[in-house]
Amino acid sequence: MEPVTGRQVRLAAGFWQTWLDRLRRDILPHQWRALQDAVPGAPPSYALRNLRLAACGEGGEPRGRPFQDSDVAKWLEAASYVLQREEAPDLAAHAAEVVDLAARAQWPDGYLNSRFTLDRSRPRWRNVRDDHELYVAGHWLEGLVAYHRATGDARALDVAVRLGDHLDRTFGPGPGKIRGYPGHPEVEIALVKLWRATGEGRYLDLARFFVYERGRQPAFFALEAQSRGDERPYDPRYFLSHRPLLEQEHATGHAVRAMYLYAGAADVAATGPDPALVERLRALWRDVTERQMYLTGGVGQEGHREAFTVPYDLPGDRAYAETCAAVGLVLWAQRMLRLEADGRYADTAERALYNGALAGVSADGRAYFYVNPLEVWPAAAVARHDLADVSLTRQPWFECACCPPNLARLIASVPDLLYGVEQDGATLFVHHYAASEADVELAPAGRVRVRQEGDYPWSGSIALSLSPDRPGEWTLALRLPGWARSATVAVNGVTVAAPLPVQTGYVTLKRLWRPGDQVTLALPMPVERVRAHPSARDLAGRVALMRGPLVYAFEEADNGPDLGALALGDVEAWQAWREPALAGGAVCLSGRGWRRLPPPEGALYARDPIPAASVSLTAVPYWAWGNRAPGEMRVWLVDADPLGPST
Amino acid sequence: MEPVTGRQVRLAAGFWQTWLDRLRRDILPHQWRALQDAVPGAPPSYALRNLRLAACGEGGEPRGRPFQDSDVAKWLEAASYVLQREEAPDLAAHAAEVVDLAARAQWPDGYLNSRFTLDRSRPRWRNVRDDHELYVAGHWLEGLVAYHRATGDARALDVAVRLGDHLDRTFGPGPGKIRGYPGHPEVEIALVKLWRATGEGRYLDLARFFVYERGRQPAFFALEAQSRGDERPYDPRYFLSHRPLLEQEHATGHAVRAMYLYAGAADVAATGPDPALVERLRALWRDVTERQMYLTGGVGQEGHREAFTVPYDLPGDRAYAETCAAVGLVLWAQRMLRLEADGRYADTAERALYNGALAGVSADGRAYFYVNPLEVWPAAAVARHDLADVSLTRQPWFECACCPPNLARLIASVPDLLYGVEQDGATLFVHHYAASEADVELAPAGRVRVRQEGDYPWSGSIALSLSPDRPGEWTLALRLPGWARSATVAVNGVTVAAPLPVQTGYVTLKRLWRPGDQVTLALPMPVERVRAHPSARDLAGRVALMRGPLVYAFEEADNGPDLGALALGDVEAWQAWREPALAGGAVCLSGRGWRRLPPPEGALYARDPIPAASVSLTAVPYWAWGNRAPGEMRVWLVDADPLGPST
Repeated sequence: MEPVTGRQVRLAAGFWQTWLDRLRRDILPHQWRALQDAVPGAPPSYALRNLRLAACGEGGEPRGRPFQDSDVAKWLEAASYVLQREEAPDLAAHAAEVVDLAARAQWPDGYLNSRFTLDRSRPRWRNVRDDHELYVAGHWLEGLVAYHRATGDARALDVAVRLGDHLDRTFGPGPGKIRGYPGHPEVEIALVKLWRATGEGRYLDLARFFVYERGRQPAFFALEAQSRGDERPYDPRYFLSHRPLLEQEHATGHAVRAMYLYAGAADVAATGPDPALVERLRALWRDVTERQMYLTGGVGQEGHREAFTVPYDLPGDRAYAETCAAVGLVLWAQRMLRLEADGRYADTAERALYNGALAGVSADGRAYFYVNPLEVWPAAAVARHDLADVSLTRQPWFECACCPPNLARLIASVPDLLYGVEQDGATLFVHHYAASEADVELAPAGRVRVRQEGDYPWSGSIALSLSPDRPGEWTLALRLPGWARSATVAVNGVTVAAPLPVQTGYVTLKRLWRPGDQVTLALPMPVERVRAHPSARDLAGRVALMRGPLVYAFEEADNGPDLGALALGDVEAWQAWREPALAGGAVCLSGRGWRRLPPPEGALYARDPIPAASVSLTAVPYWAWGNRAPGEMRVWLVDADPLGPST
Repeated sequence: MEPVTGRQVRLAAGFWQTWLDRLRRDILPHQWRALQDAVPGAPPSYALRNLRLAACGEGGEPRGRPFQDSDVAKWLEAASYVLQREEAPDLAAHAAEVVDLAARAQWPDGYLNSRFTLDRSRPRWRNVRDDHELYVAGHWLEGLVAYHRATGDARALDVAVRLGDHLDRTFGPGPGKIRGYPGHPEVEIALVKLWRATGEGRYLDLARFFVYERGRQPAFFALEAQSRGDERPYDPRYFLSHRPLLEQEHATGHAVRAMYLYAGAADVAATGPDPALVERLRALWRDVTERQMYLTGGVGQEGHREAFTVPYDLPGDRAYAETCAAVGLVLWAQRMLRLEADGRYADTAERALYNGALAGVSADGRAYFYVNPLEVWPAAAVARHDLADVSLTRQPWFECACCPPNLARLIASVPDLLYGVEQDGATLFVHHYAASEADVELAPAGRVRVRQEGDYPWSGSIALSLSPDRPGEWTLALRLPGWARSATVAVNGVTVAAPLPVQTGYVTLKRLWRPGDQVTLALPMPVERVRAHPSARDLAGRVALMRGPLVYAFEEADNGPDLGALALGDVEAWQAWREPALAGGAVCLSGRGWRRLPPPEGALYARDPIPAASVSLTAVPYWAWGNRAPGEMRVWLVDADPLGPST
């Protein structure tokens, strides 16, 4: 299916419009300041400094991480998504400057990477495994293509094409080319975008080559290391190069690399028939989302190497769940959905978007989490070595700052996630709910203006007004979220009889649609308890709260310290209420729970049952945690009813 | 109070006699082979190799850890405890060889340490913080004093005295001496033993100096580092030198160092009135045993630096709980008990001895755990970086092999832990229960032969026969274990009326005791559920099984894989039964529990309650785990009844 993107979709007042406003007014300006080292107290980025020096052609010592260019490129991509829908003179000026710098920093042969421009003693493409050159190139391509699409600027596309051509000349199966693939996948996604922007098949071919060549024998990374005399051992699993992708059974290694590789592979799979690749991606999808994903949609359990560990290893406190990995999971989900219309992909995209990803930024847009645990215990986080990566509060920037601009581009792209049109042009999919207006082309109806109203995710009442150019028979497919226990759909006030016509997670309404047709979808949003699969050991005997797509968290600010002593029983009487003061307005949940009390004399272990006091508890959306006084946070509480019906 | 030790106490057939037989027949011979690098497949120790080279005076490169001598010295101590009670020609010959080697390796000035003898380029006492010289010296003193006591060998005591004199000349407040203290405490305990063996007050004074000097400003470790031009940062908390012991509020840093320091300080406190030191030790005792101790008596939560972390941080899978630290906790408890007759100390000694320490050795005596987690999940242990220290099976030896000989000396010293006599000679304390015969001197009764019968810890029925030289009034104080909910005591068949006369954990029977008096103590030993303090987050909603002093563990061998899915409810109907095939005969527990079932379609998260199947479960004593096929192990299961009475 084809997504409906760009100016075709415009948000209206609501949850995501608020975030887009915040993005334009706070997040992107803050990030621009950070990129030019102008945020007091933040680690310097050096990214714009490097790029400006490279553009001047004067050389100099590159500073910061080897992939600092990518932060600028991701910022450019995010700003471009904003610019395609609204006026933002400051962002427009900065984005134009970035494109100008890129054009000037680009080598005559198309190569673009400030670090190697500044330090010409370091040979290009010598260490494809570790130097992140393809990763940086990919982000440049994505940013430049997005800018071109937003502004029509020919120079941006020209820089991208010259860079793409350079990659095509450098890599591939042909003679004299490097028969290799990126150490950090990313460029696969970017090359598909460049192909879509230009129609030039060589870019798609190269993306395809990178996907299929990866993991073949003889191992490129080993050969490459040998050729540069590098005898240090490396772990092919970390790089997802231990075997060809078609033979990889489990998500492994560096989580962000995995997400980007799978997303790029899904892009490739969408362009041509390769049932084996699609089947492999489905299997990996299940491995990630059914065995290795946090409740929040965070992935990558372990801080050491930012990697996957083993199925069902989902510790709350030690969770790494890098913001970039949640962003990557959305990117992958979106592409799986393009491959096949299955609501599970949109369910997971929603989970990761509203929880694991969005938690990465503060309500004021100026501070970020890199690591997103589901439990924070400040005393331990300071003392314990295994929690060294955990930050108790969001930070203004990072020495390795991949996450903030990644999250920015995701937020900026939310309108592009909402709708899709089936190949035959006769089915309109509504994947996600957000107050908005969209114009889509459908074969039987011409242009259809779709107006979506509602207060999602706070409310499950959604209204759609359809204004097709002409009456015609086509299918409106409304996603029935996996979290919804029931749904009521009405067309022009007439309720669709149960059972609803549901196909792979979508309510499919095929009929003759006329201008002015109204569709309503009512998804009850009770407060609900969620439990994990019994094999998830760290979550055994634990329960979390969700309402709609949102995971909730308990904070010390509401519930006092020692959150581990809290237990949750029945939540039927819990109330959802709007707290305007929290994160620009968030729906919180309150009700009764339990606080387990210390045994007499504070004994560490006791043979008598643990008494419990009934207490009032309040939970906030996980994404909104950490926007008040620093303190404890916990998603999973003790489950007062750990056993369901016995068999 | 004075412990009753040495030949005065002799074990009879029972739990500990079995272990002492195993020690003499399997453990100490295996360790001797390991110390001379004769165990195939085990990492070489080099300890005897180094010592023999040093004794020859030929020099050579020292191999292994800087403290390898201490493994030999601990072996000597353990063997000496055996030799003082029984004939063991092979052990006697090896022990004599060790003493001979030590005497020959000793420098003319009394210094004794193979590493520095072999490598004379490395100055002695230059890096007291890191070089473990005082630690090694301490273990030599302990081993030599024990050997002298067992055999009367004057040469052993002479070597010890010369070494002690060397330490006294080298360290202390006087002019020309090093005003410092050990990086790894241990010598404090040893100097007190040397003082007791010789009556020479200088040794006690030096132990006292080490205890009180530690942590004073200016910081010795910093000055010492400065003087050798060592600018690397170090963490004084790791060394327990961040402030004077009298000002230390929490157990911190390296757990074994902490245990040894506190034990040495308790020895010092027992020799003279220092209420502040006693009070400080009581506070640290509470900090450890009420906030930082595993159910098994293991301490030191974190593998990184083998250290304490923060109160109530008691993860099952990441537990480090080094065998040496459990041994150290017993050593400290024993000394606190000497300071004041409080059953809590004996309770904790019992907990650590029967669980955290004893788990360190296999039933065949030839394999050892260094790390003692309360949960082992093989798949994760292999993959997760934070579990890198966890061994799935006991190992024949270690490159750093402090634990095996430490455990050997603890097992060998069990008879010494059983009894104590109050200062006034008119109260006999029975701290621990074990089939045995003891001869104690009591002022009112002369020599009293105490015969203890019973099958502790498998049974709580204990019978004591008292045979005093003459009738006399004195007090028999029987420890009422903290785990016992009730107790019945009878004297000559007449039940002592309730409430029992209990003082600080002891049933005190003061009366005119006559030859032939019989006392019985019946401690019911039901299978019981144990929960942790609600602040122990990792244990929230979890329950463990105990019977008497023993912690139980669930193994894959009995219960299948995926132990995290198991839940425990009521255990009143559980049965205890003897399994002769397990670890030489162990009482196992069996009954009904629950296995929580995966949600439909294996979803990772579900909003419906988790169904549970009633299943048969079997638990084995924690110390006996890992003696069958390798697999999962888990102490804490999901608590089916996590909330007790509401308040």
